[in-house]
Amino acid sequence: MLELRLVQGSLLKKVLDAIKDLVNDANFDCSATGFSLQAMDSSHVALVGLLLRSEGFEHYRCDRNISMGMNLNNLAKFLKCAGNDDIITIKADDGSDTVTLMFESPTQDKIADFEMKLMDIDSEHLGIPEAEYHAIVRMPSAEFSRICRDLSSIGDTVLISVTKEGVKFSTRGDIGTANVVCRQNTTVDKPEDATIIEMNEPVSLTFALRYLNSFTKASPLSNTVTISLSSELPVVVEYKIAEMGYVRYYLAPKIEEDDEETKP
Amino acid sequence: MLELRLVQGSLLKKVLDAIKDLVNDANFDCSATGFSLQAMDSSHVALVGLLLRSEGFEHYRCDRNISMGMNLNNLAKFLKCAGNDDIITIKADDGSDTVTLMFESPTQDKIADFEMKLMDIDSEHLGIPEAEYHAIVRMPSAEFSRICRDLSSIGDTVLISVTKEGVKFSTRGDIGTANVVCRQNTTVDKPEDATIIEMNEPVSLTFALRYLNSFTKASPLSNTVTISLSSELPVVVEYKIAEMGYVRYYLAPKIEEDDEETKP
Amino acid sequence: MLELRLVQGSLLKKVLDAIKDLVNDANFDCSATGFSLQAMDSSHVALVGLLLRSEGFEHYRCDRNISMGMNLNNLAKFLKCAGNDDIITIKADDGSDTVTLMFESPTQDKIADFEMKLMDIDSEHLGIPEAEYHAIVRMPSAEFSRICRDLSSIGDTVLISVTKEGVKFSTRGDIGTANVVCRQNTTVDKPEDATIIEMNEPVSLTFALRYLNSFTKASPLSNTVTISLSSELPVVVEYKIAEMGYVRYYLAPKIEEDDEETKP
Repeated sequence: MLELRLVQGSLLKKVLDAIKDLVNDANFDCSATGFSLQAMDSSHVALVGLLLRSEGFEHYRCDRNISMGMNLNNLAKFLKCAGNDDIITIKADDGSDTVTLMFESPTQDKIADFEMKLMDIDSEHLGIPEAEYHAIVRMPSAEFSRICRDLSSIGDTVLISVTKEGVKFSTRGDIGTANVVCRQNTTVDKPEDATIIEMNEPVSLTFALRYLNSFTKASPLSNTVTISLSSELPVVVEYKIAEMGYVRYYLAPKIEEDDEETKP
Repeated sequence: MLELRLVQGSLLKKVLDAIKDLVNDANFDCSATGFSLQAMDSSHVALVGLLLRSEGFEHYRCDRNISMGMNLNNLAKFLKCAGNDDIITIKADDGSDTVTLMFESPTQDKIADFEMKLMDIDSEHLGIPEAEYHAIVRMPSAEFSRICRDLSSIGDTVLISVTKEGVKFSTRGDIGTANVVCRQNTTVDKPEDATIIEMNEPVSLTFALRYLNSFTKASPLSNTVTISLSSELPVVVEYKIAEMGYVRYYLAPKIEEDDEETKP
Repeated sequence: MLELRLVQGSLLKKVLDAIKDLVNDANFDCSATGFSLQAMDSSHVALVGLLLRSEGFEHYRCDRNISMGMNLNNLAKFLKCAGNDDIITIKADDGSDTVTLMFESPTQDKIADFEMKLMDIDSEHLGIPEAEYHAIVRMPSAEFSRICRDLSSIGDTVLISVTKEGVKFSTRGDIGTANVVCRQNTTVDKPEDATIIEMNEPVSLTFALRYLNSFTKASPLSNTVTISLSSELPVVVEYKIAEMGYVRYYLAPKIEEDDEETKP
């Protein structure tokens, strides 16, 4: 038997908005430690990882590990029915092929329950080893989102270059070139406005803007984003979920066949 | 000669928004007592009734009963030109085939007049007898609107069930089932937030969500909606227009050929 | 060498929004006195003129007159990347076929530079002599914009008639006729709310609403618009740019072949 009660139900809506553009069908895995998901995007290029730790739920009961396959667009239709202040409870009986969602308004005057069919989804869980990164950039998530959106109106790929002074985002397209530099900046009024660079060695990597733009759908979950770069590894774009976990996106850099095309 | 002056002109804009989705062409009937309309929707399934009593107008002159046939989309185009604070005057000469709309800004600096052609529209006026209903639900109009919209992303019809404790809205579709319960609740800070149930006997009826969603276009006219249900009669969904009248919608319940399909 | 630094960068975004609907490609002309543009709209009916005087820039260096041909949609894509509070610098080397745009955030934490290719555009500069107009109307730009938009849902052309008492905008279409009168009004709380009419002789002229609606895209540049009318000249619709210059639109009146069609 599974029963998870989340007081801040809007968080689940934001989580779904953060992943449903990339992934159509996925298994949500529940264990004693938390509620998680790992899935490749539908073109098998990017990987999404979600963790909501059990401590973040008001009530968390998971008698044994279960994996619930869901169509994320259908789940989004149900979650759209939840008010932003609603308390959400997720329930499933052992062996059942359905999951029940319950939404309670804060005043308890309105209670909705939804039963959704589960799916069988083949999936393999990739182990992602802890790794050393050449550079880790922490910056305001709205700023990162704005830069990715702006540059995608000029080019298709972005070269991200990190030095001690700052991080540079560059693109090139038919109409011209663009470079946006965000300087390291730790002396700000609000800590979430800081741009902080931890660097072991300079790194320059190119990524498809299309995927980065999908990743920025997670911005409502966190004021800051952390971008971990290494020339031998996929980039990790992480949005922390306060006191509960994270959404992480992994994307392999593009190999530069033609320097001219991608290096502005 | 007809001359009606309405200080709160935005009310006429809202009335038109409430009916133009359902009805294309209709007769507005003016008499000494008020300005009214009764029309079937274009698929002849739902009936709309409007009444604006003469007392609600700043000036109301109607020398003899007249019926003015209008295309509601065209009328909406004219009314779109009125500012929200404008005073609206409707004028027609006896026997004229046009109607004049005049919009005055509150400061009288801007005055607009519009002449619109009238149409001949066949229509029969249905007498709607006063009836006893099994149950009458009064609830916030925004809540009713939200529930109809939410459920229509899951199913096509809604089963409305009223008991002493509350009103339940249920639907069923390919992706699953949904039930939303609003509990009777009279102890609220603002009277318009109350959900009040007057019940003679329990009632459960099924309706097409498409029509209910059209009815909720009247929500800007009133904070509350009244839903009158009886197993032998069409449902009446009423939005009161403060101190002037109402917009009422009538819709026959769906006959349940297959319990499984419509009763979640 | 050209280097222009504009502290209020959002102004350049508004200027582009004001002209890019009418003009695809145009030459920006820089001289010691200012930054200007003159272009016909793509259907060669309306003329746009822009002037930003050198005094309005924080820094203005223009060693010799140059003319920079740009695709305005591409320029708009670059300017969309500028924040509303950014400082914008435009740079070009003599003889270069590119122009550089630099956007600095107010805190200097984010600096973006863009290189855009220039184009060769044939253009002839029309000399527009100072002229006497029959009537000059100054009115709130939002009001003019609203009237043009409202009337275009009813007809295609507008007859603008000026008398000492006010200015009347009339149209006629399949669904009826419309007249909007704005009265002269100088006793307002805020001077930009005034409607002021300077008239030598009454004038009535008809214009295509499609072009007037394009002109009103300049409304964010100024709270007031000035409309100069003469029966022998194109109308001039002018939006002043505070302390820097203006955007002006010129449009020839329509010749009335059939009074019935255009004179409501």
